[in-house]
Amino acid sequence: MSKKLDKLWGGRFSESTHRLMEEFSESVSYDRALYEQDIRGSMAHARMLADQGVIPAEDAKAICRGLEQVKQEIEAGEFVWKTEFEDVHMNIESRLTEIVGEAGKKLHTGRSRNDQVALDFRLYVADRLENWRKAIAALVSALADQAELHRKTILPGCTHFQPAQPVALAHHLLAYATMLMRDEERITDCLKRVRVSPLGAAALAGTTYPIDPERSAKELNLHETFANSMDAVSDRDFAVEAVFCGSLVMAHLSRLAEEIIIWANPNFGFVKLPDAFATGSSIMPQKKNPDSAELVRGKTGRVYGALMSLLTVVKGLPMAYNRDLQEDKEPFFDADSTVSGSLGIMAGLVSELDFQADAMLKALDKGFVNATELADYLAARGVPFREAHHASGRAVALAESKGCGLEALSLEELQAIAPAVEPDVYEVLDYANCVARRKAPGGTGPDSVALQLGEVEKWLFIRTT
Amino acid sequence: MSKKLDKLWGGRFSESTHRLMEEFSESVSYDRALYEQDIRGSMAHARMLADQGVIPAEDAKAICRGLEQVKQEIEAGEFVWKTEFEDVHMNIESRLTEIVGEAGKKLHTGRSRNDQVALDFRLYVADRLENWRKAIAALVSALADQAELHRKTILPGCTHFQPAQPVALAHHLLAYATMLMRDEERITDCLKRVRVSPLGAAALAGTTYPIDPERSAKELNLHETFANSMDAVSDRDFAVEAVFCGSLVMAHLSRLAEEIIIWANPNFGFVKLPDAFATGSSIMPQKKNPDSAELVRGKTGRVYGALMSLLTVVKGLPMAYNRDLQEDKEPFFDADSTVSGSLGIMAGLVSELDFQADAMLKALDKGFVNATELADYLAARGVPFREAHHASGRAVALAESKGCGLEALSLEELQAIAPAVEPDVYEVLDYANCVARRKAPGGTGPDSVALQLGEVEKWLFIRTT
Amino acid sequence: MSKKLDKLWGGRFSESTHRLMEEFSESVSYDRALYEQDIRGSMAHARMLADQGVIPAEDAKAICRGLEQVKQEIEAGEFVWKTEFEDVHMNIESRLTEIVGEAGKKLHTGRSRNDQVALDFRLYVADRLENWRKAIAALVSALADQAELHRKTILPGCTHFQPAQPVALAHHLLAYATMLMRDEERITDCLKRVRVSPLGAAALAGTTYPIDPERSAKELNLHETFANSMDAVSDRDFAVEAVFCGSLVMAHLSRLAEEIIIWANPNFGFVKLPDAFATGSSIMPQKKNPDSAELVRGKTGRVYGALMSLLTVVKGLPMAYNRDLQEDKEPFFDADSTVSGSLGIMAGLVSELDFQADAMLKALDKGFVNATELADYLAARGVPFREAHHASGRAVALAESKGCGLEALSLEELQAIAPAVEPDVYEVLDYANCVARRKAPGGTGPDSVALQLGEVEKWLFIRTT
Amino acid sequence: MSKKLDKLWGGRFSESTHRLMEEFSESVSYDRALYEQDIRGSMAHARMLADQGVIPAEDAKAICRGLEQVKQEIEAGEFVWKTEFEDVHMNIESRLTEIVGEAGKKLHTGRSRNDQVALDFRLYVADRLENWRKAIAALVSALADQAELHRKTILPGCTHFQPAQPVALAHHLLAYATMLMRDEERITDCLKRVRVSPLGAAALAGTTYPIDPERSAKELNLHETFANSMDAVSDRDFAVEAVFCGSLVMAHLSRLAEEIIIWANPNFGFVKLPDAFATGSSIMPQKKNPDSAELVRGKTGRVYGALMSLLTVVKGLPMAYNRDLQEDKEPFFDADSTVSGSLGIMAGLVSELDFQADAMLKALDKGFVNATELADYLAARGVPFREAHHASGRAVALAESKGCGLEALSLEELQAIAPAVEPDVYEVLDYANCVARRKAPGGTGPDSVALQLGEVEKWLFIRTT
Repeated sequence: MSKKLDKLWGGRFSESTHRLMEEFSESVSYDRALYEQDIRGSMAHARMLADQGVIPAEDAKAICRGLEQVKQEIEAGEFVWKTEFEDVHMNIESRLTEIVGEAGKKLHTGRSRNDQVALDFRLYVADRLENWRKAIAALVSALADQAELHRKTILPGCTHFQPAQPVALAHHLLAYATMLMRDEERITDCLKRVRVSPLGAAALAGTTYPIDPERSAKELNLHETFANSMDAVSDRDFAVEAVFCGSLVMAHLSRLAEEIIIWANPNFGFVKLPDAFATGSSIMPQKKNPDSAELVRGKTGRVYGALMSLLTVVKGLPMAYNRDLQEDKEPFFDADSTVSGSLGIMAGLVSELDFQADAMLKALDKGFVNATELADYLAARGVPFREAHHASGRAVALAESKGCGLEALSLEELQAIAPAVEPDVYEVLDYANCVARRKAPGGTGPDSVALQLGEVEKWLFIRTT
Repeated sequence: MSKKLDKLWGGRFSESTHRLMEEFSESVSYDRALYEQDIRGSMAHARMLADQGVIPAEDAKAICRGLEQVKQEIEAGEFVWKTEFEDVHMNIESRLTEIVGEAGKKLHTGRSRNDQVALDFRLYVADRLENWRKAIAALVSALADQAELHRKTILPGCTHFQPAQPVALAHHLLAYATMLMRDEERITDCLKRVRVSPLGAAALAGTTYPIDPERSAKELNLHETFANSMDAVSDRDFAVEAVFCGSLVMAHLSRLAEEIIIWANPNFGFVKLPDAFATGSSIMPQKKNPDSAELVRGKTGRVYGALMSLLTVVKGLPMAYNRDLQEDKEPFFDADSTVSGSLGIMAGLVSELDFQADAMLKALDKGFVNATELADYLAARGVPFREAHHASGRAVALAESKGCGLEALSLEELQAIAPAVEPDVYEVLDYANCVARRKAPGGTGPDSVALQLGEVEKWLFIRTT
Repeated sequence: MSKKLDKLWGGRFSESTHRLMEEFSESVSYDRALYEQDIRGSMAHARMLADQGVIPAEDAKAICRGLEQVKQEIEAGEFVWKTEFEDVHMNIESRLTEIVGEAGKKLHTGRSRNDQVALDFRLYVADRLENWRKAIAALVSALADQAELHRKTILPGCTHFQPAQPVALAHHLLAYATMLMRDEERITDCLKRVRVSPLGAAALAGTTYPIDPERSAKELNLHETFANSMDAVSDRDFAVEAVFCGSLVMAHLSRLAEEIIIWANPNFGFVKLPDAFATGSSIMPQKKNPDSAELVRGKTGRVYGALMSLLTVVKGLPMAYNRDLQEDKEPFFDADSTVSGSLGIMAGLVSELDFQADAMLKALDKGFVNATELADYLAARGVPFREAHHASGRAVALAESKGCGLEALSLEELQAIAPAVEPDVYEVLDYANCVARRKAPGGTGPDSVALQLGEVEKWLFIRTT
Repeated sequence: MSKKLDKLWGGRFSESTHRLMEEFSESVSYDRALYEQDIRGSMAHARMLADQGVIPAEDAKAICRGLEQVKQEIEAGEFVWKTEFEDVHMNIESRLTEIVGEAGKKLHTGRSRNDQVALDFRLYVADRLENWRKAIAALVSALADQAELHRKTILPGCTHFQPAQPVALAHHLLAYATMLMRDEERITDCLKRVRVSPLGAAALAGTTYPIDPERSAKELNLHETFANSMDAVSDRDFAVEAVFCGSLVMAHLSRLAEEIIIWANPNFGFVKLPDAFATGSSIMPQKKNPDSAELVRGKTGRVYGALMSLLTVVKGLPMAYNRDLQEDKEPFFDADSTVSGSLGIMAGLVSELDFQADAMLKALDKGFVNATELADYLAARGVPFREAHHASGRAVALAESKGCGLEALSLEELQAIAPAVEPDVYEVLDYANCVARRKAPGGTGPDSVALQLGEVEKWLFIRTT
């Protein structure tokens, strides 16, 4: 048990903190992840204080020099983290004072731990969201590369997970690129609300020192400063919103993962999994398991859970800072490593997927995905649509009984069902033609897909150069 | 049980739908809420088809005339909704065909129910989010009005729900305005992703007709058109994001509600509740209950729950449209009526709250919220800060034992504790002076609060004129 | 706007309730669902009061007669529900007093709305959970019937959604029966905590009347009475636990739904969907969609959301009753209709599924699910296991290249890969034999499955006779 | 990157696992927490195999000896955990084989990693739930001790967080004991479903060896064995249910925490916080913060989040084991340490709370919690209740204006409002008498509270001796 005298706030207390309480309330075991942001924030604060004449310029210099040393010690693994100093801020500040003496104590002028932790966390979240944006671009790039390769590969597009109409594999994959690009836009919007400086809100009421919040914000690449000090120290919306953005990313990855898992089952056989992202079985020699995709799908729950955690934490909290808010960091950390890791794994997996056009072709036949075309064909030849629809249904039944696709029925067979059929029907039934006809913007036709790919590449170019 | 022949898709089916299944799968009992959006969307589609030469102009006119009539019938309560037509779209379309005959059947050219329902829902969500923005502005206005009245009212600002430093009530209330203005910004960002037209994505693959998606989007005030048809029919991110925005609104309202509930308890007595937003007890004559605030706090769970519902629905769904997505509307509807209702109630409640400055003043004394000022005063007079902090702590203990505030201790009493004290200490201890000293931007000082109020009023001016 | 004088508690209030507030806070639009429980509870209370000599016996009789009449009026659709009476309790009580006069007013002796609503809701939840138990038994029965039919049908058992080992379809289906029987046990445990009477807890502190809580509890088939009045009026654990039980039911149904959806895809073709629980497409003639299963899977989110709502509502609520708790009923109602409806739909769907043994057989070959048996066979003949595993893997590769199952390889082909192979290998590779060998308890062998079926039938017998 | 040849299942793979994939999929960094359960389970399995004659008795002995050594190495910190062995099971097994040679390889006979991990996790969850039960008993004990001390202490019982009626502090505290005892019952019910052995379900289909699942289950103190092998390897209901039980525990603790936080605010002053479970401020000398209670309240979100994670993971998973299920452990571990830690902290905090009867007394006056008694008094003297209620309301208004309680009004003052008042009114208004009159079972009267305390002590006696 730590001595009460060790506590900076021990004055009014006659008993020391209970050992259980020390363990329960410490945060340094995880918030040390913020060390870089804490040091960066403190340097900006010190320089601002000096610029405003609140502390001497040489003190600010000493502080920055000391913080630089602390940073090096941490990165060299030489820093001794102490639980009795509770959190990353106190650990760094106490070491700073050891190094630079009295000047170190002036660092806390015009701020408190409440605005300091909010600042550090905002800087950290901003850094991680930038990382998410990059990881999204990498996955979009992998999808676009596969789409480029598979402009002409056709598979059954499903609704209700039943074959509906033939689509280009490129189009199917670009649907995921579209989702991810929307995620990236949402994250960019979120960053506007992350990059707001709370520095100078102090404990809750603002400070009596003539600080310049914009000065430190600018140095820290934060575009706005807090409007209201009480909000500034108790606002964790930015973290909740970030985890929400991550939840939608995971929802999208879970959909892609689901498809890859199903496609890898031999009844589909649409894809061969890369050895590097699959596992086998020590018992069953025939097995190749899509563990990477399964894990991504499963980890979706993790980020949803983190979102629910954070929303629960902030419910019904009175003004201003409450210790409940310490529970903001671990859910974000966990969500961040899950989102980052999952995006990375999916980029690796997608880029090495070996799609099987033959298996897709067989599935087109089995799914009779050109039945709509046959009905339309008949309708265009004057058959009332309801009748055309029924005739096409009968043709499907015949082909099914023969174990072939519609296009493998003979002209006689088709004419027996629908006398309006003529030899040109086979052109209509051709899958590639079916796809090509859907050339309106955003459709699956090759021209439309080429336009989509162009847009995706433009998007990638801006983000990766 | 409906006859199988009634179903448009009955051709291949030899048995009719089970009665349980009809009930389980119908949506018209709730999606009829989309009637106005459905009709608006269909009109835009018909006009686009005519402009593109896909259908004759007179057909488009007939369709629009018919739809106008359907709308009037619905609004007059004369429309007969039929469960066997499953949803709002089929109900309206079938009535349209009754009215205008063959032309009505052409409306479905180049679209399907999949893109139609996505369009209607997007238009609906956009309408409701605009409503949220207005409701937020109304509540911000109520907060600003009270803040204007209470620029000089001072109460104990809390951290850890313990009195920390004195703050202006105006500042405290503006913290909530700040949260809500952030909500409004987030909703505005969300609207960019809501206002994307999926019309023309058809079932999943796009259409073979030479449609012009931008033409119909423009008429519907949608700023973008879909990039990928498969994404377009299966994307419900816009609804999930809208409900997330609502979740944060509710989190903020739950915090305000919590404070009002506590402030109305006689031990605080910071506020008298308006009769119009409170209830009494038929048994206990002394009671005045903050039901409005309690309900808002409780309803927070409802919107969080809707968010979790939607996130669960979309997890792991393969491409493209799946019937699971029918479960998108009711959670949004419920969240919408909760968010709208709660904002309205809070605006009414806040504008009629009767704040009790006297009770706040007593609480300032009880909370010794000027203790920091005393420590700073001593430190400024050369007392080492740790010692100053302890001396102030001892003064608190003395005042506590006498049941008074620090400022009610005599000069002798204070000097006995800290000889450095001089008569000017009382100016320092004065609560209004404490507040006034925090004049840095975003702080609680009157100048800072005046600036904040000015910004809020500017914000309101733009949104309400 | 209702007149303030209409309110029973209006005495201290000088202004009437705001119209918005009336709408926001009324509950009669949904809590009227509790009318039967409210009346039953009131009758038991009245009889207890008379037995204890608190009210005259003739008053109790008059009350019961009056309540009987109210019930008939409600069930005949003649009762006029009034929003200004806020909730089901006040509506019924006010009508009761109209019918029986002064005696009606005595009904509220020794209770308050707080314990009354808790009682009604407990009775309602208990009724619905009994219904869930029955609906579970119906689905277990449907699964058992199909299992009985498919004792000898074999399909590939998957891990990681990759074919692993052959299993009996009966065994696969009974896995779901096992989950559901576990659900039923959990619900039965939950009922112990639902069936606790809060009657007599009054507003929060208990009553001054000499009531006998056990007397009324017994009449209402409640096995326990409240231990602590403050807990009694604020406890909603029973509803949260009920919705949790429903969440696991839905999780299980979502798994079954997922498999049916995938099995109905033509690449699997393991099952033909019954017309009565499927839908077609008005556009695509070949389509038969598993909407029933999709809706069940989607509705899972609804119950998860209701659980999250309720957990959020109760978080951090101080003692005792708070109006937040009014938000308990709608989430339960919604979860109840979802769970009940989904169980019913699944029972109907499962009992009409038409399983396709041929398609399953083809999948066994494609999945090489007897590869483990080959490795074991070699190991049993002295081949080191790692080598046996590799040899089996090579055999799989050969069969894959030939497009056949392992058992279709010739003896020469097998011996070329593994010289230890002898003619008896084909008996080992036979799928039925693979299944039969797993005869340990709980395994997929026919004897084990017969035992399982026997247990399930015993379980059903107890519950349905 | 690990060599592909290192993998037991590497046969069919030509490329090694990607480094990212290794990191993403390993679990040994956290599942090593299961080492004791893994070893215990393996020993029981080895002994069963020997008893059944599947392996020689000396092999079973060698295995058990080897596992004992592994355990000692782990507990001595000498065991080298290797990420390339992926999980706790493979790490232990590979070390075992190093120690005991060939015999070690026989341990895996008749089981697979799928049933092994399910067994280990069940044993672990059972151990932790037993720990929860003990931690609950410790907190109930702390509450009972305080209740014993405060049988006569009276405070305002609230509804709607407004003073309603006076209650004994003992009664208020025992409401929490009641919740926790209900939690303990729920956990005990859950344990029935945790303590089911899956051992022998093997990969998914059961085993070909003549195992005796009941033999190993008995040794492991598991009361049942699996009914269906496919369910056995994919069932994680027990973990979801455990986390749900923990969610309700946290909901209850969050309520208690909320009250302690509010009571510690000087406007209430109902409780003085123990130094050992509070913190101060290095800036504000007057502060004593209820951090322990705030953290518990905040951590509620954490367990709710873990529940949502697990429910999301299991949604829609097809049979049988899927790698998604690896995401079961960390949410449980996090929930477990949160629930255990929070219960421990609350027991420590509650037992050192210093309740302030004087402050409660003042609050009784301010809350006019005897107003109901006055109305009842008048009604008993023949005043119509509505009039009596209004008269009491007027008395409240008078007392409020004078800043005193009802009982401090003079007889003349009371009679001026209600002529029926006589001197005996003061006995009726006495708070202790108000409390004492509520002596029906479960009420707040001293006799009822004594009975409650007796029941709690009986409950504790059974659990702690």
